[in-house]
Amino acid sequence: MAAFVIDGKVIAAKVRADVAADVARLKEQHGFVPGLAVVLVGEDPASKVYVRNKAQQTVECGMQSFEFKLAEDTPEEEVLELVRKLNADPAVNGILVQMPLPKHMDSNKVLELIDPLKDVDGFHPMNVGRLSIGERALAPCTPVGSVILARSFKDDLSGLNAVVVGRSNIVGKPMAQLLLRENCTVTIAHSRTKDLPDVVREADLVVAAIGKPEFVKGGWIKPGAIVIDVGINRVLKEDGKGKIVGDVEYAAAAQVAGAITPVPGGVGPMTIACLLKNTVEAALMQRGLMRA
Amino acid sequence: MAAFVIDGKVIAAKVRADVAADVARLKEQHGFVPGLAVVLVGEDPASKVYVRNKAQQTVECGMQSFEFKLAEDTPEEEVLELVRKLNADPAVNGILVQMPLPKHMDSNKVLELIDPLKDVDGFHPMNVGRLSIGERALAPCTPVGSVILARSFKDDLSGLNAVVVGRSNIVGKPMAQLLLRENCTVTIAHSRTKDLPDVVREADLVVAAIGKPEFVKGGWIKPGAIVIDVGINRVLKEDGKGKIVGDVEYAAAAQVAGAITPVPGGVGPMTIACLLKNTVEAALMQRGLMRA
Repeated sequence: MAAFVIDGKVIAAKVRADVAADVARLKEQHGFVPGLAVVLVGEDPASKVYVRNKAQQTVECGMQSFEFKLAEDTPEEEVLELVRKLNADPAVNGILVQMPLPKHMDSNKVLELIDPLKDVDGFHPMNVGRLSIGERALAPCTPVGSVILARSFKDDLSGLNAVVVGRSNIVGKPMAQLLLRENCTVTIAHSRTKDLPDVVREADLVVAAIGKPEFVKGGWIKPGAIVIDVGINRVLKEDGKGKIVGDVEYAAAAQVAGAITPVPGGVGPMTIACLLKNTVEAALMQRGLMRA
Repeated sequence: MAAFVIDGKVIAAKVRADVAADVARLKEQHGFVPGLAVVLVGEDPASKVYVRNKAQQTVECGMQSFEFKLAEDTPEEEVLELVRKLNADPAVNGILVQMPLPKHMDSNKVLELIDPLKDVDGFHPMNVGRLSIGERALAPCTPVGSVILARSFKDDLSGLNAVVVGRSNIVGKPMAQLLLRENCTVTIAHSRTKDLPDVVREADLVVAAIGKPEFVKGGWIKPGAIVIDVGINRVLKEDGKGKIVGDVEYAAAAQVAGAITPVPGGVGPMTIACLLKNTVEAALMQRGLMRA
């Protein structure tokens, strides 16, 4: 039986609609509009597209968008000074510095200067730590979106055997923390894992975040499992044209899985939606408010 | 074949000897002696014993020990003020506030006020976060000691299937991070895990940290596995006398495992030894030094 396809575009739209409703309520009840500042240094074409999309969706949700575009050769100290200014600006509830930064900058130094309460990417060590110990925290957008996708198919993930393939700071590790919060039994597998196919075969929920095209084979998937594919890989087809594939061998996996996210149109659209959600959460945290 | 017994007393003595050698070298080459401040609020008998042992071993390693004993009814603000003073004191390289604090205090507030560079317990969210993302960090003492014990039997843990039973902030979660750093495939199991015996049966390395006497049965252990027992449980024997047992059914597990830590005399002695090790590491970090 073919898997249920989890439509990330539809679910991301739902997340954005919820954000817009939250924003409208905050404006009406508290008289303020959350704002997101995005800092882009240099001319990386992919980064420019991301930043444009982020700004556009921020405005569509009724929030304020502040864009800061700096030249590739901007001195690090200028970026640090901008972050300090944004930290101090009450109109700015979220600060995102688009990665990668030019090579002459210390990315960690820049990221760690961001006020953790405004760190909507969730990469600051304070947020990583708070997420781990179960305090209120801003969590990285892609893993947050992945959990929403999994829960759209099965609301209660408690007790599931979850296998996260990949241990990056941006996806794999925070994903493991979020799934532990959902009461999954969590296994983190990676390049040094022995018998990866066997490890994946035990999983009721697989999250593939390795960055290798179609690396996870259909034959590794346990029948009925939920498959969340975080990979976005550009490959060449036989006709020489490019296409985007995930980290999972989709066609084969979709024959076995209970549910699967497509690439594109799965996890991808969730990332910006969850960034907007984090911006509202950041605004609430800064004012000591909880979501109802 | 009976398991190799990992003698925590011997290995802890080795760790303390290394600390004493580091301390002697720091004194000789840099002219300073690391200092550890321990804050005890109230009269909890177990806490008083821990604090006394910590102070004694600190001095035995050649370091300075500063003890602060405050009455049970001390106002929270006085404890916070003491932490601020210790943060600012250059003679104090490590600060440990003995848990549990009296009920009228917010433990998180006190712990988060400690300068992360002096947080030798490794409980501050900044250290939790830095440990997770692979930066230099102070890591919790019991998990650090557990890794040393496992590595005393098998130096390279890379690729091992490690199962951590228990997901506390003090042991389970940091243990998982440390084993991931050792390149193990790491599974975190807990009270909501289905078929725990089957999960443990897959493990080349088991860390039991649940706090339930002899909860992990000998029959769950894979032949040849390394078993690290973090539990310290006081139980009554049939003759009405008390004894200390771990979280693992020791006698049965020792028949199957490749190596096992006894209780007492396994992980227990490692905790203070690793606290002293963390104090030296904190002193090095504060001065921008690396261990050779």
